[in-house]
Amino acid sequence: AAANLESDDFVGISFWLISMALMASTVFFLWETQGVTAKWKTSLVVSALVTFIAAVHYFYMRDVWVATQSTPTVYRYIDWLLTVPLLMIEFYLILRAIGVASAGIFWRLLIGTLVMLIPGYMSEAGYLNITVGFVIGMLGWFYILYEIFFGEAGKAAEANASPAVTYAYKAMRWIVTVGWAIYPIGYVLGYMTGTADQETLNIVYNLADLVNKIAFGLLIWYAATSESQSAA
Amino acid sequence: AAANLESDDFVGISFWLISMALMASTVFFLWETQGVTAKWKTSLVVSALVTFIAAVHYFYMRDVWVATQSTPTVYRYIDWLLTVPLLMIEFYLILRAIGVASAGIFWRLLIGTLVMLIPGYMSEAGYLNITVGFVIGMLGWFYILYEIFFGEAGKAAEANASPAVTYAYKAMRWIVTVGWAIYPIGYVLGYMTGTADQETLNIVYNLADLVNKIAFGLLIWYAATSESQSAA
Ligand SMILES: CC1=C(/C=C/C(C)=C/C=C/C(C)=C/C=O)C(C)(C)CCC1
Ligand SMILES: CC1=C(/C=C/C(C)=C/C=C/C(C)=C/C=O)C(C)(C)CCC1
Repeated sequence: AAANLESDDFVGISFWLISMALMASTVFFLWETQGVTAKWKTSLVVSALVTFIAAVHYFYMRDVWVATQSTPTVYRYIDWLLTVPLLMIEFYLILRAIGVASAGIFWRLLIGTLVMLIPGYMSEAGYLNITVGFVIGMLGWFYILYEIFFGEAGKAAEANASPAVTYAYKAMRWIVTVGWAIYPIGYVLGYMTGTADQETLNIVYNLADLVNKIAFGLLIWYAATSESQSAA
Repeated sequence: AAANLESDDFVGISFWLISMALMASTVFFLWETQGVTAKWKTSLVVSALVTFIAAVHYFYMRDVWVATQSTPTVYRYIDWLLTVPLLMIEFYLILRAIGVASAGIFWRLLIGTLVMLIPGYMSEAGYLNITVGFVIGMLGWFYILYEIFFGEAGKAAEANASPAVTYAYKAMRWIVTVGWAIYPIGYVLGYMTGTADQETLNIVYNLADLVNKIAFGLLIWYAATSESQSAA
């Protein structure tokens, strides 16, 4: 399939770029564990898992795209079902590293994720009304946002973090707000108003993953390396 | 496709050689992180990312070459869009390791990269006049050269570095001048005068990557290991 990438197939090019960037990020996060103190290593490994899982999906999606100029959303949902819970675990791990996590935070964020993704997928696959799935999914997302801004997680982070951790935590929170908004917007344009085509949707999702997976991981790397240096 | 490599296909052989050398360099840089002090590890990891990304692209380009005796430039540009910014980050990291980096250096080098590559690609893909893309790209490259020779980065390196770091920094700078010149020359011969054929262009690009990716990384390895030994 690789042979057919055309120089003006910008969606295909964006699939290539992101899949390579995801692989490289995986190597980066894994090796950078050497430079951080023990309690931050797990956070970096989880960042690497997110980019690794996504990279494998992107290699498949890229080849399907190059061959057919479309890519079924089912691959993205499989990816999300694994990577979104891992991203939620990152909030938990960062709070645990600074000593303020509770198991309740972990479970609430996980439940929020499932409420967001499962109805969304059931609608896209035709098992649930498009609007119903959307509304339930939005509730799950709002619940996650509530928890990390105003809930136990938000309060714990505010009270106890160093500047680098505060910076990273706040930026991660904004990624969950602004970066994640791209997916429900894509859903609305693709399924409800029907105004978006496959090309636009895929290029926008690809760029979104650059922010939501790689930049998100880099924020954690920033917090981890800053904390580890000040501990040394 | 690999099965078809002919003994007199010297371009194909150069693709094989470079792709293997890139893989081996990746392993080398990653494992050598063990031998250097914390602040130099990231530099070696980034060297490994450059050779890793390039290696993956070379495997594809090699197979396309062996199958078709030509290789679309689009793969090289995808590689460049990822690896050139990483090479620029190396200048930033080396200055940071000796304690004299500023965020401005990082952003200016990144912008120079994009101004160099994007118009070049748009011209090759037919979206911009060949000469216009070339002139804008050259400006981006000159801007990078200015920054690392005479700008803040150049001055910071001159004032504060140990002999090994000075040596590496100066050599890296010359690679960006002489080694990188090969790509715009190839562009002129391929698109403007039309005197270069696919074979010559690909063999020259392949050798260029040996210098610009592997030798460049080895210079960083030299600085990192020398500094780490004198710190021990
Ligand atoms: C709210 C909402 C959605 C949100 C999806 C999101 C927010 C996905 C995030 C994925 C990420 C961040 C992946 C990165 O690894 C759906 C299911 C599209 C449709 C239903 C409403
Ligand atoms: C100036 C110029 C160019 C320069 C390209 C360069 C300098 C690429 C360097 C790539 C490297 C160093 C890759 C190694 O990893 C173009 C885009 C060909 C054409 C427009 C003018």
